[in-house]
Amino acid sequence: METLSTTKAHGGTQGVYRHRSTATGTDMTFSVFVPPQAAAGARLPVLFYLSGLTCTHANVTDKGEYRRIAADLGVVFVAPDTSPRGDDVADDPAGAYDFGLGAGFYVNAVVAPFARHYRMWDYIADELPALIAAHFPIDPARAGITGHSMGGHGALTLGLTYPDRFKSLSAFAPIVAPGQVPWGHKALTGYLGEDRSTWRAHDAVALIADGHRPAGDILVDQGDADSFLTDQLRPDLLRAAADAAGIDLTLRLQPGYDHSYAFISTFMEDHIRWHAARL
Amino acid sequence: METLSTTKAHGGTQGVYRHRSTATGTDMTFSVFVPPQAAAGARLPVLFYLSGLTCTHANVTDKGEYRRIAADLGVVFVAPDTSPRGDDVADDPAGAYDFGLGAGFYVNAVVAPFARHYRMWDYIADELPALIAAHFPIDPARAGITGHSMGGHGALTLGLTYPDRFKSLSAFAPIVAPGQVPWGHKALTGYLGEDRSTWRAHDAVALIADGHRPAGDILVDQGDADSFLTDQLRPDLLRAAADAAGIDLTLRLQPGYDHSYAFISTFMEDHIRWHAARL
Repeated sequence: METLSTTKAHGGTQGVYRHRSTATGTDMTFSVFVPPQAAAGARLPVLFYLSGLTCTHANVTDKGEYRRIAADLGVVFVAPDTSPRGDDVADDPAGAYDFGLGAGFYVNAVVAPFARHYRMWDYIADELPALIAAHFPIDPARAGITGHSMGGHGALTLGLTYPDRFKSLSAFAPIVAPGQVPWGHKALTGYLGEDRSTWRAHDAVALIADGHRPAGDILVDQGDADSFLTDQLRPDLLRAAADAAGIDLTLRLQPGYDHSYAFISTFMEDHIRWHAARL
Repeated sequence: METLSTTKAHGGTQGVYRHRSTATGTDMTFSVFVPPQAAAGARLPVLFYLSGLTCTHANVTDKGEYRRIAADLGVVFVAPDTSPRGDDVADDPAGAYDFGLGAGFYVNAVVAPFARHYRMWDYIADELPALIAAHFPIDPARAGITGHSMGGHGALTLGLTYPDRFKSLSAFAPIVAPGQVPWGHKALTGYLGEDRSTWRAHDAVALIADGHRPAGDILVDQGDADSFLTDQLRPDLLRAAADAAGIDLTLRLQPGYDHSYAFISTFMEDHIRWHAARL
């Protein structure tokens, strides 16, 4: 693992790192904020934040406003990239923003040529947590997961599949049912193929219907001025699935907020408090 | 004035605007955060934040982490650009980062070809405050000024020259004595010419020596891991000038912090509290 930069911020250390990923077969870059409590030798809770379409680690690192509250509460904050990258990594043939580079959708692709590098599920579920545990002062038994939009989809599907690994769960404006919306149709067809039965493991609403349960309750914030609300995000489908399954879902429709980091940064403190209280 | 974007954030509105400036003879872009208290019809205090070399309004708008505390305290936060811009605006002949575009140094240039558009002093002292007062719910009698690096220089020189207009004053890692450091030599020679007597009006340490006084006390934060500390910033010169003049200067050397927005965002809350308490 290579350190690209470290900077003191809010009493802790904001770093950016790169490593060779065995999951993706590429270099992967991610950021980690280590709060000041680490100086005392403590093993701290860790929150994985999965970003949305077009993002790298840098978007939330620059605009997420998580450092002050993570420093207050003693939470390590990890922000990975959203896809493999590199000259030999296949991209959307038309260069679209919603597939390929910056749009890995947190699945292991089986369709060529994407199957070669697009293994973001394994990367987030296995490789990155192990790497973080090896190099940073975290307690792997106290890990939570969150994310935004496509990253909210990733957080929900990983949290529902591995409640033993991700003990707390939240999302900002997540894609809750990729099997039922255009972004998801395109991504799951392109990465997993036409057999929709294979999509269910990557659809939070389907996972719940199939009996998967999170480690505990779930927090979701969603802006009601989000232009993707009704066609791509559909929190109503998660509400219905959670209610039918008896999952304790706090779903908050935030008046006037859009899909941007202005929305995310406004509610970041609430989410970090949510995770810290459960880890 | 044209609205380029507005987004709800922390209960208020983060906007980006453009207007035709009579001072610079160019279009100028700036951002304004209006906190939620404006909804009650109040006229609010306003803080002008001047950015450093290479920046536009966007750097602090994205990375400054000012919205939460500005929303809490009811402060309007204004972030202008650092120079005129446009196809007919002269730049550094070599395209250097520290002169020309992105480096207006908050002076009215008299040297050709810069004299035509580089009139950032008039823009910040007169035109922008009047525009803000005309279009936003501020009380012009409750205006403060701050800034970073070159923008800290601008805040100090404007605050010392117009204590009646800027009632509170602070700076992050400011250039305190441009007449004595390389960035300042280059900029003041290029914009004002070789006659150093004309530089004194744009050098905070010289202004203090010449009898100028701020409206009240001054807060300056400076990282001790800032790579520009000893050659370009020289807070020791401001300390000496303030002490000799009996100016109440709170100068804090912050251990481990560099020159970046990680430093600025860490101490932004303290600065907004400082201004709010004095406005």
